[in-house]
Amino acid sequence: MKNAIYAQSGGVTQVVNSSAYGVIKKCLNSKKINEIYVGINGINGILTENFLKMSKESSIEIDKLRFTPSSAFGSCRKKITNNEELSKISDIFKKFNIGYFFYNGGNDSMDTANKIDLYLKERNQNVKVIGIPKTIDNDLVETDHTPGYGSTAKYLATSMLEASLDVRAMSKDSTKVFTMETMGRNTGWLAASTALARVNGNFGPHIILIPERLLNQEKFLSKVENSVKNNGYCSIAVSEGLKNENGEFLSELPFVDTFGNKQMGNSSLVISKIILENLKFKTHTAIPDYLQRSSRHISSYVDVREAIECGMKAVDFALDGISGKMITINRLSNTPYHSEYNTVNLSLIANGTKFLYDNFISDDGMDVTDDFIEYAEPLIEGEYPPHFDKGIPIYSHFKIK
Amino acid sequence: MKNAIYAQSGGVTQVVNSSAYGVIKKCLNSKKINEIYVGINGINGILTENFLKMSKESSIEIDKLRFTPSSAFGSCRKKITNNEELSKISDIFKKFNIGYFFYNGGNDSMDTANKIDLYLKERNQNVKVIGIPKTIDNDLVETDHTPGYGSTAKYLATSMLEASLDVRAMSKDSTKVFTMETMGRNTGWLAASTALARVNGNFGPHIILIPERLLNQEKFLSKVENSVKNNGYCSIAVSEGLKNENGEFLSELPFVDTFGNKQMGNSSLVISKIILENLKFKTHTAIPDYLQRSSRHISSYVDVREAIECGMKAVDFALDGISGKMITINRLSNTPYHSEYNTVNLSLIANGTKFLYDNFISDDGMDVTDDFIEYAEPLIEGEYPPHFDKGIPIYSHFKIK
Repeated sequence: MKNAIYAQSGGVTQVVNSSAYGVIKKCLNSKKINEIYVGINGINGILTENFLKMSKESSIEIDKLRFTPSSAFGSCRKKITNNEELSKISDIFKKFNIGYFFYNGGNDSMDTANKIDLYLKERNQNVKVIGIPKTIDNDLVETDHTPGYGSTAKYLATSMLEASLDVRAMSKDSTKVFTMETMGRNTGWLAASTALARVNGNFGPHIILIPERLLNQEKFLSKVENSVKNNGYCSIAVSEGLKNENGEFLSELPFVDTFGNKQMGNSSLVISKIILENLKFKTHTAIPDYLQRSSRHISSYVDVREAIECGMKAVDFALDGISGKMITINRLSNTPYHSEYNTVNLSLIANGTKFLYDNFISDDGMDVTDDFIEYAEPLIEGEYPPHFDKGIPIYSHFKIK
Repeated sequence: MKNAIYAQSGGVTQVVNSSAYGVIKKCLNSKKINEIYVGINGINGILTENFLKMSKESSIEIDKLRFTPSSAFGSCRKKITNNEELSKISDIFKKFNIGYFFYNGGNDSMDTANKIDLYLKERNQNVKVIGIPKTIDNDLVETDHTPGYGSTAKYLATSMLEASLDVRAMSKDSTKVFTMETMGRNTGWLAASTALARVNGNFGPHIILIPERLLNQEKFLSKVENSVKNNGYCSIAVSEGLKNENGEFLSELPFVDTFGNKQMGNSSLVISKIILENLKFKTHTAIPDYLQRSSRHISSYVDVREAIECGMKAVDFALDGISGKMITINRLSNTPYHSEYNTVNLSLIANGTKFLYDNFISDDGMDVTDDFIEYAEPLIEGEYPPHFDKGIPIYSHFKIK
């Protein structure tokens, strides 16, 4: 009987550990896999034989993975750049009798998995390589959506609703505009998700700025002014990857501090500055940054469940002899929401980017359509909160250093 | 039988509507009060006779106030500056047969309530004026703590825990330092509360920077470096009101943009810049801003309950003939946590500021003591989440415009 190895890579999410849980439990309960190793800090741990043996770890900690954000085993940004590394991985897989390799990540991670798969196949080394999707950005092609997106969407939409109620209350004689910066360097899926705040009320957002459309400053300011006129206030979601009409990232517009150094900005702070200078409205700006991808305390039940199932399906497919593929989620129906799992070639994922669809973007380019709401709403449904002790969530803890 | 009036003022919180719920339900169920009016946008609504009659509002919406963040009836920053306004309030109170006035806010609001109380007393107008405390900052004197603090502390500590797990996972070959900016212009209560992240684990924060201590840049950088050396990463809470060794607010250090305009900064961005320039560590920065005071989705049960009870007690005390006082919370025991309610003169609250106690601050000035944890931990205990529909919290909605 062969052993399996699992590792996590790329930016973390609220639910990547749920996929780990699916893989680990399925392997531990399988009668066809001997040991399940987990690599510390992704491919780094594999290259240095820095593993945990899951058969030796506490089943309580493994169970808590479902409720634990971030990468419990450490992540990495490392890419495979040469054949020496591939050769080393091949040797280590032989040494540890590895028959199954599960890599959990986004585009770059699928590229790594693909390289490993091709290298081993060429040398007739029998290792089944399966990619498990993970990214809050929702920008992987060939899958309806990715685990992580639903939970970040739920966090951002809830935060947008709550902050919109805040600025609504303050707007009579104080702050009139609230901006919130979302992640998504190249795509607007996350900024768009704030529109889900409107499913229970109509408090905001009033404007959504996405990387798929260049900022038209004049039309934007006019929309802000109208919102303040009509609602008393204006709530705005700003993608970190927003560009101006010259195609420059707002976050890269040069600022010079008093020491003469160029400073990198944040797109939401630039937007707030544009509003203050042109319309004289007092603004507040939130930049949730890491909070939006680690906020396991408000994850979507659908998202957690799908993340677990992606992990379980990866083991099923590998045991069926499939290799060089990533798990995909295919939506079967919206009401009630129902999905199934399939696979796609890793090579198709590695270099693709799924932009926010044109029919999800409003005509003025500063909002989403009902089609988007219909697409995104099922993905944030249900709650699956962690357990709390002394007022704070209980998260799992593996020794990774 | 006289009528009562209630209004909200100052920066909003997750639980100020819970106090509204306490006041409104108690008045509606009282056989000694005829109608309970609610002023829209605080004192602005009173001055313009812009009220809602609670007997005419849906009891379902009133019940949902317990679960709804922000000021459901609108807030204000307005202060009373002249006798004309006081005279107008006196007349409106007569016109609407007001015998009880409840004002829910922080220092400035208590100053307003105090002025109204003194003005009416001098003229023998029989209105019982009671202040209900509300501020996430926890800086009101004469009370053990204020409603709002526990919920923001729970949000900030949970966010700090989650983001610390994030940077821990990324630190092997990417981001090594995470900074999060907390509110608290003059006091460190909120920055300090992030230390509660450690009650279930030891992932961070490693450094807490508060307004009560000037930043010693050399000692600070040395502490960051040690944390990265020992833990692989460093998580830092930065109060928005942090000052450098010259006593200047970090947020006010002048930046000049390419258009030659002076820019206001954020203390956490300045801290990140200092770390990047001196230690070359990649940093990430979160600025939750409004999210930390409107995040009703993760409020503390103890905080919600006390906010409701402060509202109920205000009505009890007013019916007992007390006036010119604010409700205070007095802690009776920690294990189990138990508190009772008393009153204090409004004039004592109006001009005081409760700074983080010296025995709550570590010797190096960059952390809290066990005494602080013992004080703060009971205030974040228990969960009392809102109901969700279609993945989003259901919050109450009153027409205020």
